[in-house]
Amino acid sequence: MLKLPSHIAVLTSGGDAPGMNAAIRAVVRSAVYYGKKVSGVYNGYEGLIDGTFEELDSRSVKYILNHGGTFLKSARSQRFRTPEGRKQAHENLVKAGIDALIVIGGDGSFTGAKIFSEEFDFQVIGVPGTIDNDLYGTDFTIGFDTATNTAIECIDKIRDTASSHDRLFLVEVMGRDSGFIALRSAIAAGALEVIMPENSITYDQLYQAIERAGQNKKFSNIIVVAEGNKLGNIFEIADHLKAKFPHLDIKVTILGHLQRGGSPTVFDRVLASKLGVAAVEGLLIGRNKVMAGVMHNQVIYTPFEEAITRRAYINPELIRINKILTI
Amino acid sequence: MLKLPSHIAVLTSGGDAPGMNAAIRAVVRSAVYYGKKVSGVYNGYEGLIDGTFEELDSRSVKYILNHGGTFLKSARSQRFRTPEGRKQAHENLVKAGIDALIVIGGDGSFTGAKIFSEEFDFQVIGVPGTIDNDLYGTDFTIGFDTATNTAIECIDKIRDTASSHDRLFLVEVMGRDSGFIALRSAIAAGALEVIMPENSITYDQLYQAIERAGQNKKFSNIIVVAEGNKLGNIFEIADHLKAKFPHLDIKVTILGHLQRGGSPTVFDRVLASKLGVAAVEGLLIGRNKVMAGVMHNQVIYTPFEEAITRRAYINPELIRINKILTI
Amino acid sequence: MLKLPSHIAVLTSGGDAPGMNAAIRAVVRSAVYYGKKVSGVYNGYEGLIDGTFEELDSRSVKYILNHGGTFLKSARSQRFRTPEGRKQAHENLVKAGIDALIVIGGDGSFTGAKIFSEEFDFQVIGVPGTIDNDLYGTDFTIGFDTATNTAIECIDKIRDTASSHDRLFLVEVMGRDSGFIALRSAIAAGALEVIMPENSITYDQLYQAIERAGQNKKFSNIIVVAEGNKLGNIFEIADHLKAKFPHLDIKVTILGHLQRGGSPTVFDRVLASKLGVAAVEGLLIGRNKVMAGVMHNQVIYTPFEEAITRRAYINPELIRINKILTI
Amino acid sequence: MLKLPSHIAVLTSGGDAPGMNAAIRAVVRSAVYYGKKVSGVYNGYEGLIDGTFEELDSRSVKYILNHGGTFLKSARSQRFRTPEGRKQAHENLVKAGIDALIVIGGDGSFTGAKIFSEEFDFQVIGVPGTIDNDLYGTDFTIGFDTATNTAIECIDKIRDTASSHDRLFLVEVMGRDSGFIALRSAIAAGALEVIMPENSITYDQLYQAIERAGQNKKFSNIIVVAEGNKLGNIFEIADHLKAKFPHLDIKVTILGHLQRGGSPTVFDRVLASKLGVAAVEGLLIGRNKVMAGVMHNQVIYTPFEEAITRRAYINPELIRINKILTI
Repeated sequence: MLKLPSHIAVLTSGGDAPGMNAAIRAVVRSAVYYGKKVSGVYNGYEGLIDGTFEELDSRSVKYILNHGGTFLKSARSQRFRTPEGRKQAHENLVKAGIDALIVIGGDGSFTGAKIFSEEFDFQVIGVPGTIDNDLYGTDFTIGFDTATNTAIECIDKIRDTASSHDRLFLVEVMGRDSGFIALRSAIAAGALEVIMPENSITYDQLYQAIERAGQNKKFSNIIVVAEGNKLGNIFEIADHLKAKFPHLDIKVTILGHLQRGGSPTVFDRVLASKLGVAAVEGLLIGRNKVMAGVMHNQVIYTPFEEAITRRAYINPELIRINKILTI
Repeated sequence: MLKLPSHIAVLTSGGDAPGMNAAIRAVVRSAVYYGKKVSGVYNGYEGLIDGTFEELDSRSVKYILNHGGTFLKSARSQRFRTPEGRKQAHENLVKAGIDALIVIGGDGSFTGAKIFSEEFDFQVIGVPGTIDNDLYGTDFTIGFDTATNTAIECIDKIRDTASSHDRLFLVEVMGRDSGFIALRSAIAAGALEVIMPENSITYDQLYQAIERAGQNKKFSNIIVVAEGNKLGNIFEIADHLKAKFPHLDIKVTILGHLQRGGSPTVFDRVLASKLGVAAVEGLLIGRNKVMAGVMHNQVIYTPFEEAITRRAYINPELIRINKILTI
Repeated sequence: MLKLPSHIAVLTSGGDAPGMNAAIRAVVRSAVYYGKKVSGVYNGYEGLIDGTFEELDSRSVKYILNHGGTFLKSARSQRFRTPEGRKQAHENLVKAGIDALIVIGGDGSFTGAKIFSEEFDFQVIGVPGTIDNDLYGTDFTIGFDTATNTAIECIDKIRDTASSHDRLFLVEVMGRDSGFIALRSAIAAGALEVIMPENSITYDQLYQAIERAGQNKKFSNIIVVAEGNKLGNIFEIADHLKAKFPHLDIKVTILGHLQRGGSPTVFDRVLASKLGVAAVEGLLIGRNKVMAGVMHNQVIYTPFEEAITRRAYINPELIRINKILTI
Repeated sequence: MLKLPSHIAVLTSGGDAPGMNAAIRAVVRSAVYYGKKVSGVYNGYEGLIDGTFEELDSRSVKYILNHGGTFLKSARSQRFRTPEGRKQAHENLVKAGIDALIVIGGDGSFTGAKIFSEEFDFQVIGVPGTIDNDLYGTDFTIGFDTATNTAIECIDKIRDTASSHDRLFLVEVMGRDSGFIALRSAIAAGALEVIMPENSITYDQLYQAIERAGQNKKFSNIIVVAEGNKLGNIFEIADHLKAKFPHLDIKVTILGHLQRGGSPTVFDRVLASKLGVAAVEGLLIGRNKVMAGVMHNQVIYTPFEEAITRRAYINPELIRINKILTI
């Protein structure tokens, strides 16, 4: 007979993302709704090892739905990568009477969750919380929509000054391994080009794009650059462009960590709400070592195994559209 | 042999929606990309009848991607409902050498487009531009995401003052026939209840929700009310609640037309970009009397016949989730 | 010899305003800086009578600087208008060892503060926290800048839809007794006219303004209406205009309570910080029954007597400028 | 007898600032109001030399009040530093029948304006348009309030992620020669410290501030760094702090050019409106070689000579307050 959880712990892990608070709220309230106890773990896996748990109720999570960040705090944990660390974590959970865990984070966090679940036969479900949108098993991750909207608000402002001075701006957005933020931002910003891990744009192609823009009388231009692109560091790229087009006024802006903060958008609040509920309901029907995601508007559970090893691919249609629209 | 268009006209019709400018831009640039002429029609169908056309090129639509409203302006047209009006419109199009039309608007606009297309065997494709999200044949309409985010920004502010004074606010959002904006806003705002055309909530249920909130020590509350709900006018509802709960401090806010404006979100900019391209490409492959939409991240073309007569249904899952989360 | 306070209480009273939290923070941290104890009183004067005090330290007010509303909550108190209520309040303060009080609010709150101070020889200083900006003794009140920026963000959105449809919008902003919000919003929005308590605009003048706009080819227009204007209810005004200009498409939007919420602007955060410090420092140098304000960038202390009875006047220069710019 | 202008030219010069469009609009509409002709000059002084003038009327400046940037574009001009360049500029103005000039910009622009005015006895008035707020003769420059609000919106987002991870962020804001943006941002952000040209903070003081924060259990902290501070490059400062506090998680964000863009705040729109009117009215009463500014809510005209050579000083009161509030 299936043993169902009576006391659920929830933690946030890895880089924080807007909407994590909304997801925690959804987990807590769903747990209460289904008559389960629920505890928050502070500082991600570090808190499992340190035993920094706090029992939560419906009111504990009031007024956090619209706040960026995570009130449970997040951290990366070296200790949880060791058998000793995980053993301590398990002992703390057992001592507190906790029999299931929900981990809100990205693929690194799910890797740890999978090992832990297997080692101790402990029920764990993941919720995709990362601005990078690079997880297999969900159309969108919590935080991605907010981060791209933040990027776009910044680029819209940069556009104002770019067009006042007929400048070319290179704008770096987050994305170490993927160009999701970069590509959507580029389309939404009307950027001339996007340089990202998924495309292998060359300097010659970049030069041609800029020359074509000049011929088309586009005097101010934005090029969106993903952190993890393969062409090079954004300052090196700028130097190449300055050497090729000495008459152009070229500037660099790196948006950086501000992309991680801010009040979540409606999209992220609704997604986080859905997935928080889905995670609790997944536990209640015995799902384990899976990530709750949304594909085609339906909740689905993807084994950690797949979510970790398979890739989320950029829709090539978006790349095609971007090319058409920058004519 | 298929006769393909050489000169495409584009117009916006019905209530305006954020992202219409982005859709116009996508239509114009795609047309240029495929070597077609393209003209903008001012004031919707009125402009067809008055012949207020202007030929556009790639630069005509610069810097509009992020602007709310529609630079082609929109209008409702009584004259286009008459055979004489449509005849005049057709003569103007023929005189200008225009042989295809893209209509950005809602179901009323598509009804007119369908009649016109049939009467004169004129190629027409629709693009769903309305904040109401109530069209069959697309998961989202252009403007819906922006409008709900606008609503939420307002409700977040109302929450600040509600919680400072322990008040109950009734907030009316747009939606004459559907509760899409209301329901998503309610989830994203953490509202106590939502009153919308699609639910048949009674006063008793409303009283119970408010009593339960009091028992749960939720001292400030938001109830989201869709314009077209069946319970009654928002002021009447407020009066009922005041009579039942004389000790409560109850206030009404009607968000109104500000929900129609503002810079479009990333979601709406990308959607408008996709659908503007899809409309032009649809014309080029001979599609007619269809609306270009996006379902499950794929462009699809739905016959006007269906888009007009079938309904878009609210996902019942969202109603269920809202109930869980307001515990 | 002057008896200086050792334990300061702070409360927020009357309608809430963005920046009240920042002012509380400044009071608390200044008190700590000067080695004084400090307590927060919940629910304004009600909390004085109920004895809902909480001792605060520097960390109690972290992360509230940028939050709208007031975490101490605000209320209007009938009981504080009675000698019995004030007596109870005084006993509670004495029992808690509190010997000075800072009241953040508007003129109604200062009237109560003055009576209380006189009755019990209790040291009280006021901080002007109200969105209405209608207090004598300070160039700006805390919350006014945020409220007008909120109004303008809304009116900018309304402008988008107004210009898409060539409409005339009447937009009501807060201001029962004064037109500060209305006039600044009108200038900042490029409104055609402003109707407010301080001007005695007639329907004839309004008609002329609208006719002149038509002649000048201004097809979409905004008229800003202060709640407390003398011409009439906004719907009545709209009806008059519809009767006079039947061909115009005229709409009404009432911004309402959302003007009270939201994260404070830099201006309000800095002003609240200054005045919170000034209130504590005023207590420490023996000031009593005064309001701390900022005039010409200098902190000044104005006796409650004057702050309550004298009026803040609208700069007539702004009215003149608005007339020039709407040409 | 005083010869008054009949045809006024207006240009924007130097780094662009939000509100420049609002100032241009005010100049154009005031000129029309007073029955004068008015022309816009594109690209700052470059446009004077190239003769890129365009006559404007009231409608030319519609819908720009709330747009960032400057539709007249801005540029720095080497040619205008030469007698030949200025001679060409003068000839173009005379040829176009223009007899007065309004320059919206900063001190560099006014230096050029002064020389030009003296060489050709040409009537010129300046309007302070720069985000840096570093001009003598006005309490605020156009763009400063918007830029600090933009900075704060970014820092608020950074605060979210800083507090989720207990990090120390160094955030660089604009200000090559002055700390106006830095200091106001620091107060409004609740920053631990501010490093700017006007203070001579040492590493030891910085270390002490961070140590004190740790003792006070402030686990996440923001330090605002002005571009032109004297302690060093922000990355060098970060390296020093990392060496001193190896256990701290320290990050750097450079806000950069996004601070120049965006829709202007109410404050900047009103200020720009006032000063645009004041510039035209100054010309009409014969003022020359002066900058129109606002001090203590009054318009005043300061000779270029003074505006250029004297300094705007940071209010030391703000430095004092910041120290108190970061306790």
